[in-house]
Amino acid sequence: MEPLDDHVRDLIPLAADAGEEHHERLDDESNTLKPSFIRQVAEALDHHETDRVYALVEPLHPADIADLFELIEPDYRAELARAITDLLGSDVMAEMNDWVRDDLVEELDPDEVAELAEQMETDDAVALIEDLDAKDRAAVLAEMEPTERAAIESALAHPHESAGRLMSREFISVPEHWTVGELTDYLGRKSDLPTEFWEVFIVDERHHPVGTCALSWILRTPRNVALSDVMKRDQTLIPVTMDQEEVALRFQKYALISAAVVDPAGRLVGQITVDDVVHIIQEEAGEDALLLSGAGDGDINEPLPRTIRTRMLWLFVNLGTAILASSVVALFEGTIARLVTLAVLMPIVTGMGGNAATQTMTVTVRALATNQLTSSNTWRMIVREWWIASANGLGLGALMALGCQLVYHDWWLSFVLLLAMVLNSLNAGLSGVLIPIVLDRLRIDPAVTSTVFVTTMTDTFGFFFLGLAELFALH
Amino acid sequence: MEPLDDHVRDLIPLAADAGEEHHERLDDESNTLKPSFIRQVAEALDHHETDRVYALVEPLHPADIADLFELIEPDYRAELARAITDLLGSDVMAEMNDWVRDDLVEELDPDEVAELAEQMETDDAVALIEDLDAKDRAAVLAEMEPTERAAIESALAHPHESAGRLMSREFISVPEHWTVGELTDYLGRKSDLPTEFWEVFIVDERHHPVGTCALSWILRTPRNVALSDVMKRDQTLIPVTMDQEEVALRFQKYALISAAVVDPAGRLVGQITVDDVVHIIQEEAGEDALLLSGAGDGDINEPLPRTIRTRMLWLFVNLGTAILASSVVALFEGTIARLVTLAVLMPIVTGMGGNAATQTMTVTVRALATNQLTSSNTWRMIVREWWIASANGLGLGALMALGCQLVYHDWWLSFVLLLAMVLNSLNAGLSGVLIPIVLDRLRIDPAVTSTVFVTTMTDTFGFFFLGLAELFALH
Repeated sequence: MEPLDDHVRDLIPLAADAGEEHHERLDDESNTLKPSFIRQVAEALDHHETDRVYALVEPLHPADIADLFELIEPDYRAELARAITDLLGSDVMAEMNDWVRDDLVEELDPDEVAELAEQMETDDAVALIEDLDAKDRAAVLAEMEPTERAAIESALAHPHESAGRLMSREFISVPEHWTVGELTDYLGRKSDLPTEFWEVFIVDERHHPVGTCALSWILRTPRNVALSDVMKRDQTLIPVTMDQEEVALRFQKYALISAAVVDPAGRLVGQITVDDVVHIIQEEAGEDALLLSGAGDGDINEPLPRTIRTRMLWLFVNLGTAILASSVVALFEGTIARLVTLAVLMPIVTGMGGNAATQTMTVTVRALATNQLTSSNTWRMIVREWWIASANGLGLGALMALGCQLVYHDWWLSFVLLLAMVLNSLNAGLSGVLIPIVLDRLRIDPAVTSTVFVTTMTDTFGFFFLGLAELFALH
Repeated sequence: MEPLDDHVRDLIPLAADAGEEHHERLDDESNTLKPSFIRQVAEALDHHETDRVYALVEPLHPADIADLFELIEPDYRAELARAITDLLGSDVMAEMNDWVRDDLVEELDPDEVAELAEQMETDDAVALIEDLDAKDRAAVLAEMEPTERAAIESALAHPHESAGRLMSREFISVPEHWTVGELTDYLGRKSDLPTEFWEVFIVDERHHPVGTCALSWILRTPRNVALSDVMKRDQTLIPVTMDQEEVALRFQKYALISAAVVDPAGRLVGQITVDDVVHIIQEEAGEDALLLSGAGDGDINEPLPRTIRTRMLWLFVNLGTAILASSVVALFEGTIARLVTLAVLMPIVTGMGGNAATQTMTVTVRALATNQLTSSNTWRMIVREWWIASANGLGLGALMALGCQLVYHDWWLSFVLLLAMVLNSLNAGLSGVLIPIVLDRLRIDPAVTSTVFVTTMTDTFGFFFLGLAELFALH
């Protein structure tokens, strides 16, 4: 066989024979690094055995090297980076947790960061640089090649979390009058192709995308067929300003592998591939739970003071709702003083309301985020939640009223408990569905703000249970 | 130009010119069907204008037809299906919500279902059939071609939500001694190729996968190069029994487009492609929030009685914890009777504890689900949450104690409130992190069960605030 020419050699993956050894370091079941392995690395770092560290880390997959940085004690990270600088490629940096990466980037000199960024695709380079402060960012950009720098600067000009930040500027586009043969020859000839691509974009003379061609169609089609006869015309175009969450929803809805990104004039300016979107889908889907709980982005690698600040702010706002609830209780101090049993029953009414509201709210926020709940079925959703709340309120309220009767032998008290549970269940169900919908219509992220409003509703209303007791003169 | 031969013609997408018209029916911003469009379809169905329904629906993308079924009132679904039977292709069914699809499948005759299933890739066909009851499933399978039936039966033999159910049996595998040219000729010749594929698997003589080749490498490599020289050897193999959540994590971690599925003997039996995994990532990531809230799978298309049952069961279990909390209050009835202010302050202590616990628990459950929290950093995570809980408890406790002093002018009461908030914050933080970790070690899904245990801890402990008051003889 002939010797391979250079551009073919570039294609041969580096990690070729790492398979076996790599596997030993991973826990088979969870595919995470073993604690014993991390201890070995930490010990080698303690003894400044740079060669041993290198030998341990070298066989790892880049994604596992990234994990190693996350899992090892933070104090070791800088020294680990110095021990394995040439393993710290763009793959590793792209896979690394944002906080851990930012820490590491601050440890490196601007020219080292610039060198890493130049190896990366634009989207990954942007992710590496975007969180640096203005001074550090300028220092890194100054060290870069002019063309790479221009690409990154133009990406940074797009808003945070937009398609423009996410897209790669490396893609294949060819004119619509070409044949399959011309395209194949072009691909064979071109040496600066993107490292990976799955579809070819067909453009007209104004550089507007007119179709896409999956590589599998090109491989199975005779050379003389025109691209315009095999390409798929009905493609999903992503405007450069689109929010990344919306991009992720389109990829999911239309099962896309890659998609063309167009500027406001409709010209093809980049491509987004599914591997970049997978992270976003995962983050955005998990984010709602964290936002609803007030845990911010909930990243366990976030610096501690920042986490404390985020969580305390949320608890502080919620203390406001607790104080409101507590002042409702204060209104009825006299009633409680006359019948302390009411204080005993309070947690049952408010607990049931809070849990029912959380259920409804979580379902609603999720349905809004995934575009399952639209203006077409809003009303149906509200009616549905009304039924659920009625059924749960009546069912569980009756049960509790029965229990109350057995313990306290007081028909009026049991009746008030039933009434309070039914009303609070309806209140909880309707707040849980209406508040997120209204917030969404007002263009306020329902995941961030719903909980406070819903909690206020269920807590304060829950305590009006005491008002019912007053009304029925239970003392 | 020559006329296209048949297998090329098959490749030309059908929806070719639908672009413009399709777009008019969608809300530009959210990419969902407009309510006015859905009303038009419903009206046409009311008037039994089958042709008009067909004309309205025909230009839609399959994913939007699936959405139409979800968004239209359930009563219209069967008639809509009858009006557009031949548009109801496998793409539409694959994109449809599980509950809506199951409803629809029950409306169709077994031979109609069998015909749909035969057009689909194995994984989609399995999804269509797996939720039918045994009798209906047998009826559908009986109508199918023997080879298709065998493929589906073998997929159904794998556990629910395993790689075996998810994988497609249509993939390209070639022997390792081939050259790029031999592969290209083979692809051009073979007519029963999978509709879409992105990588070719290279196997040895025992049919064990030894490498993968992205199509882009094949297109840019000279014909005479051996596949074993361009293929990537270090690939991620998915065992046929692996849970789909774990499959999704691997795809994400290693940025995979497709992966080989192997049987226990290591033979290549299928492939999983990223477009199937994207749905799972989205579902699994969103699922945790829904499970933590006790809303089951939280699907808004789930039949109402089932939703009520799921949610009521959860509320019932949580009533148990509320009764426990309430009996703690009952223990201190005497104390409350002597100082009703304690009942007023109760919601503040328990509210703060509940919210802090929810934050910690959500973060922990998420970190466990994404493999970010492993045995290597468990201890660090616990220490971290201890610091957060101390900071929040002291900060907000001091604030509330100060407020209490201003309102009630009672140093002892304010001190008890501070102490209660610090202790309950520590209790909440540690329960929130330890309970999910312990459940995970016991192989119990922490998303499903954490809330009940954590709520019990914060509620009952929160009310021991009253015990503190008793201890300091506040009455």
